[in-house]
Amino acid sequence: MIYLDNAATTLLKPPEVYTKSDEILKKYSANAGRSSHIASIKAAEIIYTARYTIADFLNINKPENVVFTFGCTDSLNMIINGLFNSDDHILTTVYEHNSVLRPLENLKNIKGVDYTVIMPDENGIITEESLEKSIKKNTKAIIVNYVSNVTGIKQNMNIFSSFKRKHNLLLIIDGAQAVGVQNLDFDYDYICCAGHKGLYGPQGIGILGIKNDSFLPRPFRFGGTGTATFSLDQPNDMPEYLESGTLSVQNIAALEQGVIFCKRNSENILNHEKKLTQYLIDNLKHISSVKIYSPHLSKSGVVAFNIDNIHSNEVAEILDKKFGICCRGGFHCAPLLHKYLKTESTGAVRISVGYFNTMEDILYLIDAVEKIVKK
Amino acid sequence: MIYLDNAATTLLKPPEVYTKSDEILKKYSANAGRSSHIASIKAAEIIYTARYTIADFLNINKPENVVFTFGCTDSLNMIINGLFNSDDHILTTVYEHNSVLRPLENLKNIKGVDYTVIMPDENGIITEESLEKSIKKNTKAIIVNYVSNVTGIKQNMNIFSSFKRKHNLLLIIDGAQAVGVQNLDFDYDYICCAGHKGLYGPQGIGILGIKNDSFLPRPFRFGGTGTATFSLDQPNDMPEYLESGTLSVQNIAALEQGVIFCKRNSENILNHEKKLTQYLIDNLKHISSVKIYSPHLSKSGVVAFNIDNIHSNEVAEILDKKFGICCRGGFHCAPLLHKYLKTESTGAVRISVGYFNTMEDILYLIDAVEKIVKK
Repeated sequence: MIYLDNAATTLLKPPEVYTKSDEILKKYSANAGRSSHIASIKAAEIIYTARYTIADFLNINKPENVVFTFGCTDSLNMIINGLFNSDDHILTTVYEHNSVLRPLENLKNIKGVDYTVIMPDENGIITEESLEKSIKKNTKAIIVNYVSNVTGIKQNMNIFSSFKRKHNLLLIIDGAQAVGVQNLDFDYDYICCAGHKGLYGPQGIGILGIKNDSFLPRPFRFGGTGTATFSLDQPNDMPEYLESGTLSVQNIAALEQGVIFCKRNSENILNHEKKLTQYLIDNLKHISSVKIYSPHLSKSGVVAFNIDNIHSNEVAEILDKKFGICCRGGFHCAPLLHKYLKTESTGAVRISVGYFNTMEDILYLIDAVEKIVKK
Repeated sequence: MIYLDNAATTLLKPPEVYTKSDEILKKYSANAGRSSHIASIKAAEIIYTARYTIADFLNINKPENVVFTFGCTDSLNMIINGLFNSDDHILTTVYEHNSVLRPLENLKNIKGVDYTVIMPDENGIITEESLEKSIKKNTKAIIVNYVSNVTGIKQNMNIFSSFKRKHNLLLIIDGAQAVGVQNLDFDYDYICCAGHKGLYGPQGIGILGIKNDSFLPRPFRFGGTGTATFSLDQPNDMPEYLESGTLSVQNIAALEQGVIFCKRNSENILNHEKKLTQYLIDNLKHISSVKIYSPHLSKSGVVAFNIDNIHSNEVAEILDKKFGICCRGGFHCAPLLHKYLKTESTGAVRISVGYFNTMEDILYLIDAVEKIVKK
């Protein structure tokens, strides 16, 4: 099996991720911050250390502003539900995933919150000009997908950072495809991360990273925090304010191992992924019946394409059944982008590489695509 | 180390829970329901099978109404946030955890939802009479803690079932301490379960079991479902309607192993836990400086007590440091109950047993308590 669906989940992880998950589940998965006994204190230490490691990785100066969630969708719902009031306007982009669009649409339906979808220029980039054109007096925030989960296009975060500073807006990053791979050295307010993709952690853990705690979202989950028991309001201290219920110690500890791996290999991961996807693009673009939706200069590990007259789902199925290649066809939870790309009926074949893919995987894939085309 | 904090997390699990978690994380944690490749289909099969196993265990006839959440707090927030409108009244009890009270208080603050807290009779039982006295014309639901996480008292579910049928109310069970141990053969509408307590699964997984799908809660998390991509509204099909984002395959598969273990040992678990706690109660009640808050006839694995003139946190600390016994002192996220028990200043020492505790553990604990008392 050649696994090329890393934008969904990085199935292959660094060995220390597996080992740590197993060790912690067996020995140390007590309740952090709830009791004073040794097992609870050990669990709290594990989580405390992981929070520090991750804060450092995300350039967040207060570890307590690293909020553990249960995935990027959970993080996005937390920030989108918690930040906006009925008279707010939000800027977002055509690249957004349904984990942004559906929460926004819900806020529009229940509260009348207004949002505008920004279209890119001919190179697929959201420009300052297009942002300026759409700003309103009541614009409060921008939500942007750093790297598209469909085409892999990477937005210029400096444009967003300077725009948000200029207009005093809050910048929310959907980092699902970016965090762990791309540079995070720019000015943002909130970042939403999946544990199980580019951070090489397990499924069921995510992060909401808060750089700007002048505006905390309202809590998403209310409940026990092990603090201020007699207050029926959620305690104001971070991270308890946004973390109710039992944290998943084994998932957090395993995620920390993934983050350490990313930190150690940061340049390597991006360069390796770009090398593989660039080679793929360079070879696919000479096949006349292949249409590529990704930029011809790769900046991420994701490539989308179609083969003339074969539905993307059929291509993905042939790649799986005949060649043992796991990738994804169809739609990719990004409805506005599929309309923009004119792939509402065909979807697109998406290839997404991880650090553990090799050039041999890509050569084999190219050969498989050529064979499908020739048939 | 003797671990007696199973009401927080069952730290010791059946070996197959550990093994399954490790196996699935290493091999099969792809994205269920998102792609057609072999890894994704295998992940979907694992989740489908787990849903069936759990539906059967919870007496829910439609597996798609077993909703995977990230914990009992997540389940409770999902149902409480999703079910009520501003003119609704809710009945609940003095036994509730902050994972019920804080979401209710939030609904009261933001929507004006009204709730009444029912007090028990002299035996600690919520009676039909007390429920009848508090019902209003706009009462829509009852939320009840089946087994108290503080005293271990078990409510009579038949009273709640017949009351809800009589008045056509929705019955929401906080099953955090009950599910996996207690009988679930009664009529309810929704049940909220933690994976990591009585079901012997890992932390970071929970269940919202829906028996009555005539009234589905509004979605709690909106986002990608792998279905109806072009609809910006959440798809109506279950379970996608309530399950957005990537499911945690390894946690779900490991939880299934815990559930199978509970099913296989159902009578045994309850009898074993009752035997241990009954023995503890019978021995503690003869110590004049010990005050027990649990019923003298045990029906669960939880016992709460205090020793005169020593704060519960200090007792718990001595038990940990001097005797290597892990239990919990202080408050237990149940503010109204502590007020009712008049333990707002002292809290209580809570002993909670699991299936892997032995009578030797309890004998050792009793000996330790006697030593603390004599000092």
